[in-house]
Amino acid sequence: MATVKLWTDNDVSADTRVSAVFADIRATRKSDFINNFWRALANQPALLERTWQGVKEVMVAPGALDPLTKELIYIAVSTANSCTYCIHSHTAAARAKGLTDDQHAELLAVIGMASETNALSSALQIPVDPEFLL
Amino acid sequence: MATVKLWTDNDVSADTRVSAVFADIRATRKSDFINNFWRALANQPALLERTWQGVKEVMVAPGALDPLTKELIYIAVSTANSCTYCIHSHTAAARAKGLTDDQHAELLAVIGMASETNALSSALQIPVDPEFLL
Amino acid sequence: MATVKLWTDNDVSADTRVSAVFADIRATRKSDFINNFWRALANQPALLERTWQGVKEVMVAPGALDPLTKELIYIAVSTANSCTYCIHSHTAAARAKGLTDDQHAELLAVIGMASETNALSSALQIPVDPEFLL
Amino acid sequence: MATVKLWTDNDVSADTRVSAVFADIRATRKSDFINNFWRALANQPALLERTWQGVKEVMVAPGALDPLTKELIYIAVSTANSCTYCIHSHTAAARAKGLTDDQHAELLAVIGMASETNALSSALQIPVDPEFLL
Amino acid sequence: MATVKLWTDNDVSADTRVSAVFADIRATRKSDFINNFWRALANQPALLERTWQGVKEVMVAPGALDPLTKELIYIAVSTANSCTYCIHSHTAAARAKGLTDDQHAELLAVIGMASETNALSSALQIPVDPEFLL
Amino acid sequence: MATVKLWTDNDVSADTRVSAVFADIRATRKSDFINNFWRALANQPALLERTWQGVKEVMVAPGALDPLTKELIYIAVSTANSCTYCIHSHTAAARAKGLTDDQHAELLAVIGMASETNALSSALQIPVDPEFLL
Repeated sequence: MATVKLWTDNDVSADTRVSAVFADIRATRKSDFINNFWRALANQPALLERTWQGVKEVMVAPGALDPLTKELIYIAVSTANSCTYCIHSHTAAARAKGLTDDQHAELLAVIGMASETNALSSALQIPVDPEFLL
Repeated sequence: MATVKLWTDNDVSADTRVSAVFADIRATRKSDFINNFWRALANQPALLERTWQGVKEVMVAPGALDPLTKELIYIAVSTANSCTYCIHSHTAAARAKGLTDDQHAELLAVIGMASETNALSSALQIPVDPEFLL
Repeated sequence: MATVKLWTDNDVSADTRVSAVFADIRATRKSDFINNFWRALANQPALLERTWQGVKEVMVAPGALDPLTKELIYIAVSTANSCTYCIHSHTAAARAKGLTDDQHAELLAVIGMASETNALSSALQIPVDPEFLL
Repeated sequence: MATVKLWTDNDVSADTRVSAVFADIRATRKSDFINNFWRALANQPALLERTWQGVKEVMVAPGALDPLTKELIYIAVSTANSCTYCIHSHTAAARAKGLTDDQHAELLAVIGMASETNALSSALQIPVDPEFLL
Repeated sequence: MATVKLWTDNDVSADTRVSAVFADIRATRKSDFINNFWRALANQPALLERTWQGVKEVMVAPGALDPLTKELIYIAVSTANSCTYCIHSHTAAARAKGLTDDQHAELLAVIGMASETNALSSALQIPVDPEFLL
Repeated sequence: MATVKLWTDNDVSADTRVSAVFADIRATRKSDFINNFWRALANQPALLERTWQGVKEVMVAPGALDPLTKELIYIAVSTANSCTYCIHSHTAAARAKGLTDDQHAELLAVIGMASETNALSSALQIPVDPEFLL
């Protein structure tokens, strides 16, 4: 259960700022579905606007990385941060963008390997090789 | 400074198991350079063998994700885990595999955005939408 | 479900050390309600005593920071550590100490911004400016 | 050493977008000093612009929490995330905003206590009391 | 709910590679029970094989640390990483290997103390004493 | 460099509370050496007293776990939290308490394995088996 109220469409319709963001999410994603993340942020209109603006710019606008790769990176960060909501929402988003079972398996293998070698490097306090520096 | 000795090539030459792994790293990577991570793990031959075997299988063998994408995922995990050594070594590895400045900029933007929304989702304890479940 | 038994008031009444701590919690907080954290720690009387002593000294005794500010710091740490129980209990505590919706919104914005710039600083391995040192 | 080039004022003067952000940082902070965080982000003008816009909105603009409290929250998150750069820069910023030694001592005590009880709650997997829910 | 299907014994029987790993888990542990971790990894046979091989080598084979000590270390890491599944499964495993209530209480005390002093050391950015280096 | 002053023996001699704690550390450890952690905490006498009291009770007093095992748990938590200072100081402490190279190698293997399976369990959001619950 959230620490704040999740806004229903009824709640949203009574607030012009929140309504505008929700309308833009729907138009941008070409879908009527608005997930709980935005319904929770609706309590903080300024944060809602800034966060949606950021997500739209980083995750939706075309860029140097393709949309699926960006979802894989998002899942990797969310996994390291133990963010249940984010792991579920971005695994679903990756599937919607074409993630295959083989790619998912490989993503898991890389995340697992990185987590293991991160811990070993941390426990061993390995100095950075000069060859890796700019 | 490491919490264990970093093995020089001289130390390595006196140990058959470690020599075999180092030879395989050099052959696989087609380079004489062996970075400090492996020189630290050399103190633990069984762990060295298992870790190199895993890295070779996950990061070197061809698979469902291309080599650069795997490095981006590795950097994302290492960043979330604040692993100085891993961030430096895998940013260098990504550059060697063709990472452009634009791709690096976008990787940073996605990692930053994920970290922010991970924290917001955590602070708000947002329940997972049923639509995201299998 | 907890990994240990949660002590009921009945269980507590049979143990002098635990009874004494629970009585002090009730007297200090001027409330009969004892939350699950203490009911779980009751299995470890020495840890229960030391932890309650610490919480009383740090969070209850008057000091250089006001009680609400201390709850905001507690929520910030708990969020970064993904501690579901702590986020819920300290958000409730902050509300009981007068947290307004606007303050909560701003707390979330600061936590989110810090998480994002922490990740960027980590990924970029930015050296500390000499100006920041003592 | 950073994983990217730190832009000198000379580098900055050759780029209109970056120059505009640096000028706004200087004007907003009423100081000529620009710390390394922004000199590293200069490599990614879009990320630089968005991050500075966010920091300005969240940390500089007047709001429901006073500027020093926001710095304390920032330090708390940065500590939990082990962000060396952020701990140094925001401890310096808090001092510049009037942090006393007594307040610093109490901040440390709260961060320490929260970290300990976060770990205990995690290890014990304590269920959230219904009383804490909205 | 998992982000992947949990394999039933029926599913397993249709896949030779997964069947072989499950048979080895059952033989090694001398128990018919296979927990959800392996039923989830079954979707990624190569990862399943490598992970089970590693767990068998590190946690099951006799070594320099006794089996209960290894479980305590596992619980400590899992707690710091907020891994709900891992905390539950390895606390159960430690109990099965003889963990007493007094040992559990002391494990919790050490984890709590380490988490607190980790945070203090991080917030204070304490330089490593030369006496601690090799 | 620390965010606070590290107290020299001269500074300490001018403060009765801090002197008392330092004298007790020296007497308890039967050594004149006082490491930087305590020299940094000296700025916060109340926190210094409470932290030393806790460390003495948890790490020094005889209990259900032997002193070396407690150091291994401490290293495991410190590694997961990327605490450079703590990893160095507790690896040195473990060595002083008899840690062998084989035990160190096995500690690293368990920490690495736990980190990997923590990440896999997190990414897969595996539900806890009812068999693991009390």
